[in-house]
Amino acid sequence: MNLKLIFKTISIIMFILSIFMLFPAFVALLYQESMEFQSFLITIVLIFFIFSYVYFFCRNEKRSTLSIKDGFILVALSWTFASLFGAIPFWISGSIPAFVDSFFETISGFTTTGASILTDIESIPKSILFWRSLIHWLGGMGIVVLTVAILPILGIGGLQLLKAEAPGPTVDKITPRITETAKILWFIYLGLTIAETLLLMVGGLDLFDALTHTFGTLATGGFSPKNNSVGYYNSAYIDAIITIFMIMAGINFTLHYRLITGKVKYLLNDTELKAYLLIFLCTTLIITLNLYSNIYNTIGQSLRYASFQVASILTTTGFATTDYEKWPFLSKALLFLMMAIGGCSGSTGGGIKVIRIITLFKQGLIDMKYLIHPNGIFPLKLSGNPIKKEIVHTISSFFFLYIFFLILVTMVVSTAGQDILTSFTTALATVGNIGPGFGKIGPTANYAFFPGYVKWFLSFAMLAGRLEIYTILILFNPSFWKR
Amino acid sequence: MNLKLIFKTISIIMFILSIFMLFPAFVALLYQESMEFQSFLITIVLIFFIFSYVYFFCRNEKRSTLSIKDGFILVALSWTFASLFGAIPFWISGSIPAFVDSFFETISGFTTTGASILTDIESIPKSILFWRSLIHWLGGMGIVVLTVAILPILGIGGLQLLKAEAPGPTVDKITPRITETAKILWFIYLGLTIAETLLLMVGGLDLFDALTHTFGTLATGGFSPKNNSVGYYNSAYIDAIITIFMIMAGINFTLHYRLITGKVKYLLNDTELKAYLLIFLCTTLIITLNLYSNIYNTIGQSLRYASFQVASILTTTGFATTDYEKWPFLSKALLFLMMAIGGCSGSTGGGIKVIRIITLFKQGLIDMKYLIHPNGIFPLKLSGNPIKKEIVHTISSFFFLYIFFLILVTMVVSTAGQDILTSFTTALATVGNIGPGFGKIGPTANYAFFPGYVKWFLSFAMLAGRLEIYTILILFNPSFWKR
Repeated sequence: MNLKLIFKTISIIMFILSIFMLFPAFVALLYQESMEFQSFLITIVLIFFIFSYVYFFCRNEKRSTLSIKDGFILVALSWTFASLFGAIPFWISGSIPAFVDSFFETISGFTTTGASILTDIESIPKSILFWRSLIHWLGGMGIVVLTVAILPILGIGGLQLLKAEAPGPTVDKITPRITETAKILWFIYLGLTIAETLLLMVGGLDLFDALTHTFGTLATGGFSPKNNSVGYYNSAYIDAIITIFMIMAGINFTLHYRLITGKVKYLLNDTELKAYLLIFLCTTLIITLNLYSNIYNTIGQSLRYASFQVASILTTTGFATTDYEKWPFLSKALLFLMMAIGGCSGSTGGGIKVIRIITLFKQGLIDMKYLIHPNGIFPLKLSGNPIKKEIVHTISSFFFLYIFFLILVTMVVSTAGQDILTSFTTALATVGNIGPGFGKIGPTANYAFFPGYVKWFLSFAMLAGRLEIYTILILFNPSFWKR
Repeated sequence: MNLKLIFKTISIIMFILSIFMLFPAFVALLYQESMEFQSFLITIVLIFFIFSYVYFFCRNEKRSTLSIKDGFILVALSWTFASLFGAIPFWISGSIPAFVDSFFETISGFTTTGASILTDIESIPKSILFWRSLIHWLGGMGIVVLTVAILPILGIGGLQLLKAEAPGPTVDKITPRITETAKILWFIYLGLTIAETLLLMVGGLDLFDALTHTFGTLATGGFSPKNNSVGYYNSAYIDAIITIFMIMAGINFTLHYRLITGKVKYLLNDTELKAYLLIFLCTTLIITLNLYSNIYNTIGQSLRYASFQVASILTTTGFATTDYEKWPFLSKALLFLMMAIGGCSGSTGGGIKVIRIITLFKQGLIDMKYLIHPNGIFPLKLSGNPIKKEIVHTISSFFFLYIFFLILVTMVVSTAGQDILTSFTTALATVGNIGPGFGKIGPTANYAFFPGYVKWFLSFAMLAGRLEIYTILILFNPSFWKR
């Protein structure tokens, strides 16, 4: 294990984090929030001192390679350290008095979950809310780089599908590739950020509201600086813009790159993209018809609320424009299903991911063909390419592990005296990185009422869900720690 | 397709069914229920005429082999015809006035589900209740023969594990084997029936009550002639006997055979059996502790109710001695989990089956080892024998298909305006062949309130769940019907 290189890398990540903390510090200056300004400065200084020391201690490491094990440790520790130190401003500024709550809110941000313990969001200082949303944005970028550039190398849950050309299990060769890929992804992410911010400002939002909602959208996070989330603006235009950008954030970022470079045929040929859009359109259609006359008087209004909510839940964003708990049961059941599906691989979205669902679905049909024709040959194809059996197998295993983990989280939440619906949707909403669910954690509610141990455990669940579960659970496998 | 041989076989099955109908006819005579007596006689005559004609028409078929496709059609049609004709006495006697309800009750019986549309069971004539329970018993036997002797040949959902020595995909060779196996299984089933009946009579039950509850127990069905199910007797002895026999009915019947023939080491070595008993014991323990002081005053009482209910739900029987809806949430969440696991393969129990859960769980751990040591070799072993990758793969596919089917059923139920908990547990309780669930279909409730189309669909869901899903869904695959 190359602990020195791991901590050297973490130090660099923490330095970057502290640089980004200058933005909310600036916001604090702007809005004359001196207490908050001090909190950010103190945290920046703290990070700087601690991690300069760590970096200094680790700097002499000459081996520049990380083993696969090191990769797992690095990924888990990066998100944990970022959340631990990212939580400090919430805590010491007094905005979130309990550390467990600060940590929960921060890890919910970095994992782009958007589950909040805040009961009155609008009473929180602007700079703190800005930091809360910026965490989403950083976490969203982090996960795209991770899933597009790093996880395929670690061989996690079938995501090697993402990059047919992914190199073998030696990490040293791919450092330049990661850097290059990361640069392109940052560029796309920044472009989308600017575009959405401007379009929201056209709709009448000020820069602060436009930026924070953009952060929440593109990270498919869902933190809003408003108590009523996007519903606060009650504007069809704003709803439409955010719907479109949520859907875009749920698409594999390598496809955005293909689009920019003019390779449109890749998009038309992409099984996951087609399935994702089809799921979105069909579900929106059914819910629109279900809402029309049951809840809303016009088709237009039904479509507006249906499309927004389907996009929000499918992409695992978690914004709300209305209390969908009051919708008819079929609509709710469909949203429930969307919670499990999630966005596309290589996007900022969570959940099981569309590509896994499609693969398993196709495999189910193929298995039936084998039952009828035991000697036939029926290859599973995605985007026109045959998929190796091992990858399908890994995806099946992932699916079971996901369900198993959901049940585990459900059990833990139920020990706190929560009913089955609340317990189960809490599991879905945290492991799937969605945020709101049904029952006591519906769109108008929050996570404040859970006891401390549940909040710690849900923090762990959000992290595990974000990092494709294997990455975290593997650390609890004794054979991981054997030499 | 050898339709003639299929219908010849179905005719024989229907003749056997009509012979068994003589028993409730006899019960009707005994209790002087003349209307019911007539209903049974009419049905027997009807079956005799119709299927004599069918048999006569098909008798000249010389080919004595069924293809795999024929096997699927035969299995699906056997259960459907048995339910259609088995429903007639309920319907024409007026005990269940609507045919959809009669059919639902009958298919619920044959699939050993135990979901009932009866609102006041004790107002129904004895002979009708006897037939209702006898259907369970016949269905239970049918499923054991099916899963032990026939499904492995069809290659369904990894159940080929059951018989390492299962022959290849030619059915003609195994007819003598099926006959032989079926005989041994009948013998064991009959032995267990006599034992439980006698033990229940020792506890004070009359022959009628003892027999009907024995039928419900050994089939893991759950129909009781009492409104309060087994809770009616309020006897620790009766609870204990039924708990033990439910657990026995949930064990692979080939293991009972091994036990009788003195091959005890097979039992000690059987991974599924060990896991099944461990799940039962651990869950009972946790629920006992959870109930103690929360609901009951003594450990003994907590243990009595916990063990009965865990056995009832895990084995997918569905008997109740108390309203578990009033239990603490952790206990309910655990019962909820038991609903998904189900009994052992080759038993009368439903659900996903313990062996599949264990295989997937072990595979998850092995996958983690592969992530750490990509070049290692980690075979998956069950009962000491390595399991082929293809079988693990089939089980993974089955798991996804099961979850997919649960979601489909949930959606259909929710269109009838049912809340998510009721919709989802209705899916679990019907597809898993359990009977009662949570919410509006809890242990003190019934299925009467569902609209007709939901009852038809749930009948289909019970059948699909009973026949390992593939067997039914495959009929909807267009390529099945291509030459």
